[in-house]
Amino acid sequence: MNIVVLTGGVGGAKFLLGVKSALGWSPFGDRPASARDHVAAVVNTADDIRLNGLQICPDLDSCMYTLSGASDLARGWGQSDETWVVSTELAAYGADAPWFSLGDKDIATHIVRTRMLAEGAPLSEVTAALTERRRTGVQLLPMTDGRVATVVDVDEPALAIGTAPARISLHFQEWWVRYRATLPPHRIRVDGAEDSRPAPEVLEAIEAADLILIAPSNPVVSIGTILSVPGIRSALQAASAPIIGVSPIIGGAPLRGYADVCLAAINVACSAEGVGRLYGARAEGGILDGYLVAPGETFKLPGVRVVEAPLLMTDPAATAEMVRQCIELGALMDPRAGK
Amino acid sequence: MNIVVLTGGVGGAKFLLGVKSALGWSPFGDRPASARDHVAAVVNTADDIRLNGLQICPDLDSCMYTLSGASDLARGWGQSDETWVVSTELAAYGADAPWFSLGDKDIATHIVRTRMLAEGAPLSEVTAALTERRRTGVQLLPMTDGRVATVVDVDEPALAIGTAPARISLHFQEWWVRYRATLPPHRIRVDGAEDSRPAPEVLEAIEAADLILIAPSNPVVSIGTILSVPGIRSALQAASAPIIGVSPIIGGAPLRGYADVCLAAINVACSAEGVGRLYGARAEGGILDGYLVAPGETFKLPGVRVVEAPLLMTDPAATAEMVRQCIELGALMDPRAGK
Repeated sequence: MNIVVLTGGVGGAKFLLGVKSALGWSPFGDRPASARDHVAAVVNTADDIRLNGLQICPDLDSCMYTLSGASDLARGWGQSDETWVVSTELAAYGADAPWFSLGDKDIATHIVRTRMLAEGAPLSEVTAALTERRRTGVQLLPMTDGRVATVVDVDEPALAIGTAPARISLHFQEWWVRYRATLPPHRIRVDGAEDSRPAPEVLEAIEAADLILIAPSNPVVSIGTILSVPGIRSALQAASAPIIGVSPIIGGAPLRGYADVCLAAINVACSAEGVGRLYGARAEGGILDGYLVAPGETFKLPGVRVVEAPLLMTDPAATAEMVRQCIELGALMDPRAGK
Repeated sequence: MNIVVLTGGVGGAKFLLGVKSALGWSPFGDRPASARDHVAAVVNTADDIRLNGLQICPDLDSCMYTLSGASDLARGWGQSDETWVVSTELAAYGADAPWFSLGDKDIATHIVRTRMLAEGAPLSEVTAALTERRRTGVQLLPMTDGRVATVVDVDEPALAIGTAPARISLHFQEWWVRYRATLPPHRIRVDGAEDSRPAPEVLEAIEAADLILIAPSNPVVSIGTILSVPGIRSALQAASAPIIGVSPIIGGAPLRGYADVCLAAINVACSAEGVGRLYGARAEGGILDGYLVAPGETFKLPGVRVVEAPLLMTDPAATAEMVRQCIELGALMDPRAGK
């Protein structure tokens, strides 16, 4: 079976561990040599940021490190056994971005990536080269080789009393990591999206898929940005495979991150239903055939089979059970089944 | 007193420790607030190399680390308490240059430098910014802000038996560090020198100097490359200050490095006299007024006062004694003294 997953970073990477487990693979490390299934992840790159001249791709790296078993799952980001010598030195030079931690092992990834990009390799090639070492088991496809960036328009944080707040634009990472999404967004937009195009193999993977999954990643700044790349939404709509989404909202709140703030910025209710309606039924111009929601959160959405299932990704085995429900629901909703 | 020193890397940095000591300064760390003397070093940059996208300036960094007390003097290069996490990771990606060791703290320097250069700052400004933190006490002036590179023409190292050796050009660092100067050089040249010009303040420092010292650095690939920057040699010839050189050759051999191989490549005898004649008397179009040689190695060079002195830089105190002899000799040879 060819599975394609649209995904962001940490949460999406956990979901991918479950996909590997559901296929009987080891969650950490390479695809078994005997495997007949294939998994490709279309990964959000609008979070990417250049810091100190280094090109950082947080979502791709979260997937790469997690799937290869290099992640620090307890800390929730970065690699295990990480050290911080370079960042400490950068700080001594007054050259760090103190709100964005870069470990030494992580910096090596960024050095290799930045150099390859400077030499003219597109991000998709760079990613393939990095995962050649990392043995993720899952093919990681950046959503685009172009430079796109999620930008958040907010009021300037430091204000003199009595002055009108100036509207400023922050790179997503600064808004998310530095200000922890505490500055209310007037608007979240994806700079460069209109002129971007899907990276090689993205549309082909969607077209050739037997099952397409929407990971429980942030529906606005992860899945939403992927859908903002021209061609991806229409490829999903035209795909012959069923598309099954998993709600990132449980009990009206995101499991991690600030999806609630992001959804509010686009006037969508922070609920499984809100996100389900945002994605919409394929029959109605949306992207969903089926949708997994947490127990007790079902709702009616014409054209979408909404199914309740435990959604907590406590470990790869629990996540695998959820993915198996996605696979079952996919078989049920397969547009090709009736042919 | 304004002292200007022409210098390369490790040996020259040790010499600069002696200059600071001779002035009554602490060899490691900043210039005393009360100091009336000033020391500027014109530093070779033809060794600079870009590895993994990072711009590395080995001689500037040797000076910066040594003078600020950050060097590992026992190992002879790099910083003390250094770690190697990034390089180990780069190696795992197959992206390292295994013959060129980059410590984690060192890499932070290169990241800051590379970023500033990419943002348009010339190397002289970058160096000033880096030493702003490092407190070297000595003003470090790159010889040029341009990109110049020492290149060594050699026979290709790996040969099939019976084939004619192909002539290849190696970057200086590859020849020096990777092959330890074991590949006989057909020619040593400085790419880009003709089109380069001295960095800001270099000519002004030479013009305003009260004493100019030629450190016992490699006469070909350190001092020679500095002299290859158009304008520097003529500024030295026109300088009102005395110029005192220190022989880098003791007992017919360099104290460290491969000056013997470099001198052979330009058909100069590996001796104090050979180097003295290479530099030449100012009166004869050269750059020397005085020249310190090791005990028993004196020779006659018209226009140059050759003086014997212990030249082993065993510690800053011993080196300071040597520098004091340079200062005395300078006073004796001062072209302004008779005026």
